[in-house]
Amino acid sequence: MRKLFVIGIGAGDPDQVTVQALKAMRQVDVFFLIGKGAEKQELTDVRAAILAEHVQQPHTIVEITDPPRDRTVPARHADAAYQGAVADWHEARAELLERAFAETDGVGGILVWGDPSLYDSTLRIVERVLERGNLRFDYDVIPGITSIQALAAAHRTVLHEIGEPLHITTGRRLRDEGLADGQSTLVMLDGECSFTQLPGDDVYIWWGAYLGMPDEVVIEGPLRVVENRITRRRAALREAKGWIMDIYLLRRSL
Amino acid sequence: MRKLFVIGIGAGDPDQVTVQALKAMRQVDVFFLIGKGAEKQELTDVRAAILAEHVQQPHTIVEITDPPRDRTVPARHADAAYQGAVADWHEARAELLERAFAETDGVGGILVWGDPSLYDSTLRIVERVLERGNLRFDYDVIPGITSIQALAAAHRTVLHEIGEPLHITTGRRLRDEGLADGQSTLVMLDGECSFTQLPGDDVYIWWGAYLGMPDEVVIEGPLRVVENRITRRRAALREAKGWIMDIYLLRRSL
Repeated sequence: MRKLFVIGIGAGDPDQVTVQALKAMRQVDVFFLIGKGAEKQELTDVRAAILAEHVQQPHTIVEITDPPRDRTVPARHADAAYQGAVADWHEARAELLERAFAETDGVGGILVWGDPSLYDSTLRIVERVLERGNLRFDYDVIPGITSIQALAAAHRTVLHEIGEPLHITTGRRLRDEGLADGQSTLVMLDGECSFTQLPGDDVYIWWGAYLGMPDEVVIEGPLRVVENRITRRRAALREAKGWIMDIYLLRRSL
Repeated sequence: MRKLFVIGIGAGDPDQVTVQALKAMRQVDVFFLIGKGAEKQELTDVRAAILAEHVQQPHTIVEITDPPRDRTVPARHADAAYQGAVADWHEARAELLERAFAETDGVGGILVWGDPSLYDSTLRIVERVLERGNLRFDYDVIPGITSIQALAAAHRTVLHEIGEPLHITTGRRLRDEGLADGQSTLVMLDGECSFTQLPGDDVYIWWGAYLGMPDEVVIEGPLRVVENRITRRRAALREAKGWIMDIYLLRRSL
């Protein structure tokens, strides 16, 4: 039976990789790198650095270029057209992965940023390859440090109040639904600084970009005091680097 | 300036420790082990195994026995008496940590199950030691794999639907607030199998106990189909071992 490892490698610091991930990587013959586009060359470089440092056995790296995704459909997640566009894109990725995996005999490995269980499509694509029924294989998932934990560590903070919930959501949902009381809210996938649209003077923000990477930047403070500093800094960083990955935690004071 | 590392070491599998955590451990002269009571001897053993395998430099281990906590106050988190009882307990722990740290000259380290940012009191206690003002030190937080990621990996599942939120909460809150639609809900700190109190035939559960440990057990399925199997299995495991750590993910079908 063919074997595949889906391996979480942490949020950007090569040292965030676990011993379990290293042991899995050392069993892999072919790594499938699913590209995220040229602007994220640095992320590809980190993966290459992890392999160069920790993987000694002969291995092949197969780059799978992302198929085009229909970006004309607006990103409204409850919307059938959007879900359909994402599903088509997953299917196209599944075909590419299936073809690449079928061309090899050995153990496969996919390195995933952060953790495969959170806002990552790799597991959905792997399940889709299995559902297609052309290729039989077993696979294991190796957990990885997420940018959420990297954010909390950089700020040296707990993500929630004692015994209270943590809500993990997207920028779009924050804009649509606002900020709930009685919980802490962690916002991912926000390209629009949606925190600026929140009303009120009682919100605190812990923001971080390029978490775990050498360029890591964190800013925290009362939202109304630091929001302009964050948006300006974010724009400047994005301009300088060509891309940005950032997330933030919000909480209303009691 | 004194230095302290607060190091997340993963959910129970010694291999879930990161390279970053190992590098931090190797700088530590004195490890403070904050005890969780005799029933969790196995967890203490895992920490000892991690140190034995990965830490070669001379080091001391100082066990800090948990001060008694006022358990006569019911665990209602919004309640001032409960918050007060927890605060007193944190203060007592802070005093013990301060005393132990003051008695050493070297770099301190605290190994934390999972990640220090999630349902763990270590960071609150460390901040309290600093606020007391008797001891000056700098500290770094090293993120660790949480049982949430271990649960998702064991089930090989993503924690949420595409673009939808993940809500992390406690058993008590699940009982009080029920299960919301339109999100996935991860329940921690539930000693009472609160999922059995949820109404409806449309809920799916992914449950796991001793995640990442040799005794790891996972069960998934429609809640109404598997809930009795989970409660019986949980009771038997707890009886056999003397303690249990389990968490679960819930989601209503669309």
